[in-house]
Amino acid sequence: MTTLTSREVHLKSRPVGTPTADNFTLATVEVPAPGAGEVQVKNLYMTVDPYMRGRMTDRPSYVPPFQIGEVLQGGAVGEVVASGDPKFQPGDIVSSMWGWREAYVAPASTLQKIDTHGMPPQAFLGVLGMPGMTAYVGLLKIAALKAGDVVFVSAAAGAVGALVCQIAKIKGCTVIGSAGGDEKIAYLKEIGCDATIDYKKTKDLTAALMKAAPKGIDVYFENVGGEHLEAAITAARPFARFALCGMISQYNDTDASKGPSNLIQAVGKRLRLEGFIVSDHPEQQALFVKDMAEWIGSGQLKYRETVDVGVENAAGAFVKLFKGENIGKMLVKLS
Amino acid sequence: MTTLTSREVHLKSRPVGTPTADNFTLATVEVPAPGAGEVQVKNLYMTVDPYMRGRMTDRPSYVPPFQIGEVLQGGAVGEVVASGDPKFQPGDIVSSMWGWREAYVAPASTLQKIDTHGMPPQAFLGVLGMPGMTAYVGLLKIAALKAGDVVFVSAAAGAVGALVCQIAKIKGCTVIGSAGGDEKIAYLKEIGCDATIDYKKTKDLTAALMKAAPKGIDVYFENVGGEHLEAAITAARPFARFALCGMISQYNDTDASKGPSNLIQAVGKRLRLEGFIVSDHPEQQALFVKDMAEWIGSGQLKYRETVDVGVENAAGAFVKLFKGENIGKMLVKLS
Repeated sequence: MTTLTSREVHLKSRPVGTPTADNFTLATVEVPAPGAGEVQVKNLYMTVDPYMRGRMTDRPSYVPPFQIGEVLQGGAVGEVVASGDPKFQPGDIVSSMWGWREAYVAPASTLQKIDTHGMPPQAFLGVLGMPGMTAYVGLLKIAALKAGDVVFVSAAAGAVGALVCQIAKIKGCTVIGSAGGDEKIAYLKEIGCDATIDYKKTKDLTAALMKAAPKGIDVYFENVGGEHLEAAITAARPFARFALCGMISQYNDTDASKGPSNLIQAVGKRLRLEGFIVSDHPEQQALFVKDMAEWIGSGQLKYRETVDVGVENAAGAFVKLFKGENIGKMLVKLS
Repeated sequence: MTTLTSREVHLKSRPVGTPTADNFTLATVEVPAPGAGEVQVKNLYMTVDPYMRGRMTDRPSYVPPFQIGEVLQGGAVGEVVASGDPKFQPGDIVSSMWGWREAYVAPASTLQKIDTHGMPPQAFLGVLGMPGMTAYVGLLKIAALKAGDVVFVSAAAGAVGALVCQIAKIKGCTVIGSAGGDEKIAYLKEIGCDATIDYKKTKDLTAALMKAAPKGIDVYFENVGGEHLEAAITAARPFARFALCGMISQYNDTDASKGPSNLIQAVGKRLRLEGFIVSDHPEQQALFVKDMAEWIGSGQLKYRETVDVGVENAAGAFVKLFKGENIGKMLVKLS
């Protein structure tokens, strides 16, 4: 058992507005051999996710803020190098929240062994991990999807959105996906969206949505906020359900964000808008894995990844999320 | 059986912004004796309610708009004068949607006979009618009230709000009521609110609410919109439920209303905001009547009315709603 050298990403300063590379710094640390009950792991992939932006601001939230000068945290999959715990063996594939670093030593209790069933390990950071389960829980439980619903999905070419679109299609719904740029729109068509909206080319998002869904929408899967939310409220049919997953357009706002000016329609249309966090729904985990494995196996559900390489590029990969430069899951390959 | 003369209120022009007396006009019509299957009724009381403002604008909604030059509609209780239908007898007390007029003849199927159980007939326009059931359904079903919840109520001295406050107290909750002016605040204390906010004297509603509910709120009963909604979102605890009953501060907006700038908090806090219309919940009617009768009978629940007299003052009574000049149910006594 030997010491490893690991590079890791520290928060140098709190971003004001959109994060930049300057907010982060790289440090090199020694990762000692594991003591009793500890496991030494070399990360294979780490994830960057929009929700991490929230942790870079110092405010109360459902997860505590990152601290300046300290290493960031986030999901990662890695391979066990050495183990001081009988439950883990060298070569085991594990998932953890010890991302943003090349290697680490940690208590065995903070790791989860993954039986990959032949899937690539990084799938457990995306389609079979938190983003996949977010799509599944948000659409099926929070929005209470029914066959025949007309579903509007924003950030539809993203890690969560692209899965929402496909699950809705599998469940017999009509799906309208919004994304920015020709490549993403082509991807939305490829995964089966019935209609697409390139919001970057659209002057009036509400008009575009009403045209795509002339009878209105029953479900809105909210990843973006702002104008997308307003359009969804105007296009909503009575009793429509909105799963509020995120509002990435607002994460970097420095002034007060603009709320939906038409929220009053929620009364007359009896809309339900509900925020959710996937970790509140562990009881859905088994069903999620069973369904996703079946859908992936049968070819009904596809997933895509945008992969940058090297921990030195992790901060850059994170910044890309807010520029819409990823299709599907944004990942960083670490070894 | 004889012809009656009735004065009735017509919509003269669609209000732009806050309605004024000029938007309405009084007409005198003859009410013929009832034919077969018809009933002739003299109204005792009519109701004016904030939701009627929506019907004065020409736009699609859950009820069709009022037409210019035609008589308005709304809830009323009256006494049968003559009947061409065996189910109704002179002297019967009936409720109908034939308000805004002194008398009418109408198909028996549009009337509901009321057994008043010794209550004054106009109670069936308020505490035992639509506003009462709105409070009941919104709080218990939509907001899913639980004992121990901290409940924030806006327009808390109004027809619906004052009942919400009292039902929440009966159910073992802490209640914070917001209203404008000393008389209303005194009334809120009288009906048992644990804390009150005079929004007209408060520069920072959010700060006032956080002070009144230092640990946050679990339920918000929304009657007002605007700054009240923002304050409720900021003060909300995780998993708080918002029953969206109305947003009276915005009914007269001529420009785009300002949406809540902090709605993004609904994600992290997993808030549920749900609009509702009481008429979607007829299955609650029996339970509502049973509970309310018990609470009124035991003195646990009180109600107040603001009564103007004469159909010629009905439009003025309606306008008062938007100036906050009523405490409890706003009614017009017609005979």
